[in-house]
Amino acid sequence: MQQTKVTAYDSTLRDGAQAQGVSFTVEDKLKIVKELDALGIGYIEAGNPGSNPKDLEFFKRVSELQLQNAKIIAFGSTRRIGIKAADDKNLRSLLSANTQAVAIFGKSWDYQVTDILRTTLEENLAMIADTIAYLKQQGKEVVFDAEHFYDGYKANAQYALATLQAAADAGADVLALCDTNGGTFPNEIFEITQKVVAQFGSVQSSGVQIGIHCHNDCDMAVANSVAAVQAGATQVQGTMNGIGERCGNANLVSIIPNLQLKLGLNCIPSENITSLTHVARFVSEVANMPFNDKAPYVGDDAFSHKGGMHIDAVNKNPISYEHINPEQVGNIRHILVSEVAGRGALLNKLQQIEPSLTKDSPDTIRVLEQLKALEHEGYQFEGAESSFDLLVHKLLGKFVPFFSLKQYNVSIFEPSADGLNSSATIHVNVNGRDANATAQGDGPVNALDKAMRKALEQFYPAINEIKLVDYKVRVLDSSQATAAKVRVIIESTDQQQSWTTIGVSTDIIEASWLALKDAVEYKLMYIQSLQKT
Amino acid sequence: MQQTKVTAYDSTLRDGAQAQGVSFTVEDKLKIVKELDALGIGYIEAGNPGSNPKDLEFFKRVSELQLQNAKIIAFGSTRRIGIKAADDKNLRSLLSANTQAVAIFGKSWDYQVTDILRTTLEENLAMIADTIAYLKQQGKEVVFDAEHFYDGYKANAQYALATLQAAADAGADVLALCDTNGGTFPNEIFEITQKVVAQFGSVQSSGVQIGIHCHNDCDMAVANSVAAVQAGATQVQGTMNGIGERCGNANLVSIIPNLQLKLGLNCIPSENITSLTHVARFVSEVANMPFNDKAPYVGDDAFSHKGGMHIDAVNKNPISYEHINPEQVGNIRHILVSEVAGRGALLNKLQQIEPSLTKDSPDTIRVLEQLKALEHEGYQFEGAESSFDLLVHKLLGKFVPFFSLKQYNVSIFEPSADGLNSSATIHVNVNGRDANATAQGDGPVNALDKAMRKALEQFYPAINEIKLVDYKVRVLDSSQATAAKVRVIIESTDQQQSWTTIGVSTDIIEASWLALKDAVEYKLMYIQSLQKT
Repeated sequence: MQQTKVTAYDSTLRDGAQAQGVSFTVEDKLKIVKELDALGIGYIEAGNPGSNPKDLEFFKRVSELQLQNAKIIAFGSTRRIGIKAADDKNLRSLLSANTQAVAIFGKSWDYQVTDILRTTLEENLAMIADTIAYLKQQGKEVVFDAEHFYDGYKANAQYALATLQAAADAGADVLALCDTNGGTFPNEIFEITQKVVAQFGSVQSSGVQIGIHCHNDCDMAVANSVAAVQAGATQVQGTMNGIGERCGNANLVSIIPNLQLKLGLNCIPSENITSLTHVARFVSEVANMPFNDKAPYVGDDAFSHKGGMHIDAVNKNPISYEHINPEQVGNIRHILVSEVAGRGALLNKLQQIEPSLTKDSPDTIRVLEQLKALEHEGYQFEGAESSFDLLVHKLLGKFVPFFSLKQYNVSIFEPSADGLNSSATIHVNVNGRDANATAQGDGPVNALDKAMRKALEQFYPAINEIKLVDYKVRVLDSSQATAAKVRVIIESTDQQQSWTTIGVSTDIIEASWLALKDAVEYKLMYIQSLQKT
Repeated sequence: MQQTKVTAYDSTLRDGAQAQGVSFTVEDKLKIVKELDALGIGYIEAGNPGSNPKDLEFFKRVSELQLQNAKIIAFGSTRRIGIKAADDKNLRSLLSANTQAVAIFGKSWDYQVTDILRTTLEENLAMIADTIAYLKQQGKEVVFDAEHFYDGYKANAQYALATLQAAADAGADVLALCDTNGGTFPNEIFEITQKVVAQFGSVQSSGVQIGIHCHNDCDMAVANSVAAVQAGATQVQGTMNGIGERCGNANLVSIIPNLQLKLGLNCIPSENITSLTHVARFVSEVANMPFNDKAPYVGDDAFSHKGGMHIDAVNKNPISYEHINPEQVGNIRHILVSEVAGRGALLNKLQQIEPSLTKDSPDTIRVLEQLKALEHEGYQFEGAESSFDLLVHKLLGKFVPFFSLKQYNVSIFEPSADGLNSSATIHVNVNGRDANATAQGDGPVNALDKAMRKALEQFYPAINEIKLVDYKVRVLDSSQATAAKVRVIIESTDQQQSWTTIGVSTDIIEASWLALKDAVEYKLMYIQSLQKT
């Protein structure tokens, strides 16, 4: 292993989107592209414009972004059997994506050619060569994904290598070796990759680059990817959080710090690796997949310590039970079942509001108890710091209510004439004065949101600056079916800052109301604090 | 690697129980012991009788079981500093467990001895030797867990090996090398383990056995365990589903089939490996942890296929995208429906409903187009096969409506007197007859669900058999805030089968209604199909 630079190639939006339960909207995809680019991912593989209208719209809109690090990749297959590459409509649609780089997959396992594709070994070589030559003529950077390469090599090494040769001769920039079924072991990956690197050179010798693409069917995709890099591969394909079909793809969130922090390779700009935890969680949120608390490097539990002896040792020196410093990847240490530790962290927050508090103050203990009770009910303040701030102000008697709810009433009619099928009426009291308002909305929460603003704007015109930018719902204890508890999280912005609030209830409207109310109260409290200082 | 037999050593009940959120009752532990024994696990490490009264009761009751394969292990540490082993109360309590075998952990990293344990390197060796000699005198089989062995070896190989030598000389039966922090890479594990095996022999040369104990902090614990076996280790420690502190322990559920099916080693009785999926899910249930659908070998998704080309290829020959036959581990294959799945997969489903259809039939093409359009709107049928089935029946003209909605009206009041803050009224038409009903509920969806059942039960009493067991909400395009689209997925059961339906709308009530309606229609269509045949 002499290389020092390894390029991260993310396929969350293409191979990751193959995962069961994952379906990205165009907006989702654009958001993820921006985060991956900011992290320093080199290539983002994002689908095929010919496969469906969503991808077509995506490629159009992504081309309008100013990306700093990443090249967008459109993904497709070699030309069909027996036609010219220029006549293949799938290749034409691939080109319509107007990306600088494309990835083309082709078969490297003789059996797949004869039995699945049902053509001759010679025609398969021609399909690879013609397609790549054609794409190179069109000025594209071309990645050749050698599908089933390792299984192919084990079955017929000569033919598997011939497919790589065909791709290299036609001008491919990268030969990505795929363990498509995920059945290959790290020692095999190392040995075979080493032979390929020896034969085709590496980027250092100005030859073609060798890439690796692994799947996790044997629970070793990360180790397989690392082994390929140790054998000389310089491009690593994978997905964020390892999402992907079956058992998932190789997890870039584990591979990147393994390469960067453990092997000292340059994979993403070194100043960005502290964003890894954030990006991993962001992608998980956008994909609406529960984040794996036990995820290496970035999970909530990755640096959590529970056993008494472990906690003592970690307090003496963290390297006792931590393989890296959690801050290196933007994560934090958690000490569990430790009242003192719990109070220590909480105390920092409380002292920002009331500097005279100590860890033994009755107020500190009371807030801790209240917090525990709410978390038991399903509240989770980690993602809703503004509701936490409000709560603490309220518990410490530092919050004077801006308004109180007297009543709301929401009605939903089906069918509706004009799409606005919901109506909400709200009664509030503001400093002794009653106010009410009614609004129609696209769904009951939208109607309630509008009615609240209408009722309050005469007293607090600043409410009109608040824009809700995100609304998320999680069902807790979902086995209670339609009577289950739901947790609503709302993100708001006033263009200058953004803040996140939470509500929990068995009634989704009430949970939404609680989060909406917190969003407004937080803004008003913030304005008030500016006026005081 | 000449060994053919590798012993599986499970620590779910000891190291696994360190995981955040895991707490086993005595009954839980006994149930798990029975399952692991039936699977053919060689050793079951189950805690320390001195640590709490639950463990004391457990060891008493487990000794009454007739186990076929497993030896129960009581786990403790070397004697305390400066006393005789016979005087150590922790060791006496360890012996009170009355197990045939025990495991003792001691330090192999010089830094840990001097800085954490705070004693001399010599005293640490004496602590290891005395403790093991004492336990051997008591007739125990002894496993020595060399804590931090790999980090210790990298820091001071001579001292790390001296700790193993002290244990071996005192009569230890197994030297288990621990990667306690989980920071070691597979190539390092292989090289270091190979040296230890060369020095201390292996079971074949009637020397002490070498074991491996890994953690998943670099996402490579399975690969590390396999690498150690390839280097000559003959005992593999791990936990079911990899549960454990931080990022978890090495996952035996992946390691066992890797060793058994891929490397041809004898790890558990070969006829038992088909029970692996069952046991993995059983332990997950007992631990009350959500089972990982993407778990290699045993997850629901491990042999699921979504991409169109993948499905075509799997239909032609499963080895195209499956590294083993799912039946080998007691799992099954799933074929998913989605926008990226081509006509091949869809055709299988359509032909079940209308056998005369071909892949070029106008009806096939029409259904595919409709499906794509709905997925563009946010529908996702792969998690909602019953809505898909209904939709196809409707599109092919094979569905006669059981009822039609004329109107619904849902109201939510806050504050509410009795917790039931929602009221729903529904008007339906059933074969020309109007019916309506009103119900109160805990949230608007719950109220609407109740009202629909009340209105329809006089026509279709079978509706009362339907129980909703799961209700999930996902917000699509969440940046539209409270006017965002939501997708509702409902799982229903009638005790005999369960089915899943979907609804999408900007209004959560309407989305819920669509999913509820499908749930009822699917059940009624199913009953009708039984009556026809």
